[in-house]
Amino acid sequence: MAPINRRNFIEYSSIMSAGALISPSSIHFTSQENKLRIGVIGTGMRGQGHVSLLLQRDDVEVAAICDIDSGMIASTLKYYEKYQAPKPKIYQAGPYDYRNMLANEDLDAVIIATPWRWHTEMAVASMEAGIYTGMEVCGGFSLDECWQIVNTHERTGTQLYFLENVCFRRDVMAVLQMVRKDMFGEMVHLECGYQHDLRGVKFNDGKTPYNSGVEFGEKGYSEAKWRTLHSVGRDGDLYPTHGIGPIAQYIDINRGNRLAYITSISSKSRGLHDYILNHEKGGPDHPNANQKFNLGDKVTSMIKTTNDETIVLHHDTNLPRPYSLGFRVQGTKGLWQVDNKSIYIEGLSPSHRWESQDDYMKQYDHPLWKRYEQRAVGAGHGGMDFFLLHSFVEHAKKKQAPPFDAYDAATWLSITPLSEQSIALGSEPMPFPDFTRGKWIDRKNTFAKEGDLF
Amino acid sequence: MAPINRRNFIEYSSIMSAGALISPSSIHFTSQENKLRIGVIGTGMRGQGHVSLLLQRDDVEVAAICDIDSGMIASTLKYYEKYQAPKPKIYQAGPYDYRNMLANEDLDAVIIATPWRWHTEMAVASMEAGIYTGMEVCGGFSLDECWQIVNTHERTGTQLYFLENVCFRRDVMAVLQMVRKDMFGEMVHLECGYQHDLRGVKFNDGKTPYNSGVEFGEKGYSEAKWRTLHSVGRDGDLYPTHGIGPIAQYIDINRGNRLAYITSISSKSRGLHDYILNHEKGGPDHPNANQKFNLGDKVTSMIKTTNDETIVLHHDTNLPRPYSLGFRVQGTKGLWQVDNKSIYIEGLSPSHRWESQDDYMKQYDHPLWKRYEQRAVGAGHGGMDFFLLHSFVEHAKKKQAPPFDAYDAATWLSITPLSEQSIALGSEPMPFPDFTRGKWIDRKNTFAKEGDLF
Repeated sequence: MAPINRRNFIEYSSIMSAGALISPSSIHFTSQENKLRIGVIGTGMRGQGHVSLLLQRDDVEVAAICDIDSGMIASTLKYYEKYQAPKPKIYQAGPYDYRNMLANEDLDAVIIATPWRWHTEMAVASMEAGIYTGMEVCGGFSLDECWQIVNTHERTGTQLYFLENVCFRRDVMAVLQMVRKDMFGEMVHLECGYQHDLRGVKFNDGKTPYNSGVEFGEKGYSEAKWRTLHSVGRDGDLYPTHGIGPIAQYIDINRGNRLAYITSISSKSRGLHDYILNHEKGGPDHPNANQKFNLGDKVTSMIKTTNDETIVLHHDTNLPRPYSLGFRVQGTKGLWQVDNKSIYIEGLSPSHRWESQDDYMKQYDHPLWKRYEQRAVGAGHGGMDFFLLHSFVEHAKKKQAPPFDAYDAATWLSITPLSEQSIALGSEPMPFPDFTRGKWIDRKNTFAKEGDLF
Repeated sequence: MAPINRRNFIEYSSIMSAGALISPSSIHFTSQENKLRIGVIGTGMRGQGHVSLLLQRDDVEVAAICDIDSGMIASTLKYYEKYQAPKPKIYQAGPYDYRNMLANEDLDAVIIATPWRWHTEMAVASMEAGIYTGMEVCGGFSLDECWQIVNTHERTGTQLYFLENVCFRRDVMAVLQMVRKDMFGEMVHLECGYQHDLRGVKFNDGKTPYNSGVEFGEKGYSEAKWRTLHSVGRDGDLYPTHGIGPIAQYIDINRGNRLAYITSISSKSRGLHDYILNHEKGGPDHPNANQKFNLGDKVTSMIKTTNDETIVLHHDTNLPRPYSLGFRVQGTKGLWQVDNKSIYIEGLSPSHRWESQDDYMKQYDHPLWKRYEQRAVGAGHGGMDFFLLHSFVEHAKKKQAPPFDAYDAATWLSITPLSEQSIALGSEPMPFPDFTRGKWIDRKNTFAKEGDLF
């Protein structure tokens, strides 16, 4: 039997509460001792956003932070001053100091918001340490890595919460309500993706994060320091989860349905080179003007599910364009398209004509948004980040299986290496492994349903 | 040397006119003898539309019509009464009577508007007869058929005009102007397709063509008589040309660029069955309720070009939805999307924000539309059909190579069998034959450029 430490006590008390028919949301963590102790690995811009939101809660303590960059640590500490929070233990002694944090801090939960290539090894270590693990989104590198996540979760019994915030977007959740009320009929075809002009993120002046220059890698700052290198060496859908996460909820992926195979295609690569060439701080004589980028400006993938839906997934981050996750949710009775903000439902909409989505979004606004709207105001990414962290914290308190778990993480991450492989082989279809090893047959989708947070 | 008959005389006189530096558009065909003699094979709804428009011109004579359906012949003759045109020679003695028409009528041009499966053999016969051939659009059945079109054209020297009307759509042509003025920069990614709820076309009551019942095949009328059978037996992009035709103009397919390979995916098939089930004249006891339909409700294809653009092609004809050809034209400087009627161009548009397409459509309205707008009013499909037939007639008068020729027909038609094959093999990529046998390298795109009609 595990020694009764603070961490076990919280789990135990949660179970007791449930046994006593007290609603989980009535559990309060007011005293310092009962707060959920969270450690954050990676305190760049994304990590700081999480810390800032967590410090505003009275039920958590961000007890430890870890980063290799002292400037980012310093920026993070300013949030502690702002919210008058007890200073955290700081780990900044090189890239593996996170191991010391995991070993020493008696944490209830960890959030990992480091560059992509560290996510899996840190998540595996955190699960090995028995700590409820929140892992930021990215794309994977290998199927083996995806299996590591699954196998470590199963061996240790520790949960992994894959921190996909777009599942909580207000329109995405309203449409989820509509899907569940059968407004669109049986699902047939879905589209999604990440279409975001990241040129001003992939390059900067080495000092300020956005739109400030044409440097990257060692001379870059924030994401330009590391993210851009993926555009140099790789060609695939590097960032699939903001699209596939919400779609997975609509069609119950890993819960009665499964991704079967994918085929991907990649266009010419021009956008990043042109950006360097045409930027006032760049030009043809700038050293980066000779840099080759492997990443096609537009990577498109098609996925088939075992329930016979088709999915189109966009990845479009190198060209000038307005932001769009490109959602389309189409069933036997109608469809939603995010780009024209329109809905068509047979029998409700005028024949063969789009309707504005506005009234539908109001009518089917998700109960969670109605309930938490005020608390979400001001949180990152239009309030989504409040919901994400609220869900993470509430699930971590109860050590409960998260809505996006190790199997989902493995599945969604695997899109990236599978798309790279498909492209490398001239758009050959690539089968998805069944990361659930058959459990998808009878697993249930509980995300944002009665009992999940409300 | 060929005998000098009326047909040769027109060709000869055209050459003389050009030699005398008289603009081709100044050639008038006023006397009955000098009119372009056209025969129309297939006088269903589409053929009647063409006859109706042609009879309103003073430079053509629709000298012969051919159909196996006496009712359709009768409907067509009403247009002759309406426009007080000399009655045509009628060929209606079975499916091969068109051969007699081709042999006997001394035609200058033929338009083929029959059910899809007849297009190629009729076009081949027409080219063999040395008659300028207009072939309505469809999808192909086999690569061999596509090669037949190319080989017959090359052996006989007779032109085939592939009658793709959407290339003349006003917004499509304005965007062509923008592409040619480099407004979007170098082309990177394009989308298009045929998204049209055809349930009310694929089924009817056997008497009226649209939205009147759940019969098809022998009990159906008009397209329901034959088109629906393709949804029974086939699974692929059955109707690719309204999408690929305009896209081919933007990226010069078969003229410096070429379609390289395609991979396709198909969803579950529900829409047609549901339609029968839920229609007031259908229901679970209707015999057609047991009909299986192979065609996936949503077929999506991705195409790579030799110039490294990517194309996504939609086919979506069985579900309730508003009409959309789904155009997206994306380059290194910006993009157009038809569904939100929006354009974004770096440096012109507000940063990261869509602009309405309206001002751009006005500013870049194609000169052909400005010139012929009044004549196009009232012609089918928003005026496109006027431009199509005007272009066909003017090219036929001069026996000139059409903008969409035998090579384009073969290439665009081949999408259908290639997509069927890809789907049958689980989305395997399928290479496009080079139907030009290398001529694409130096062929030039002349469509709607100075000298083509204006």
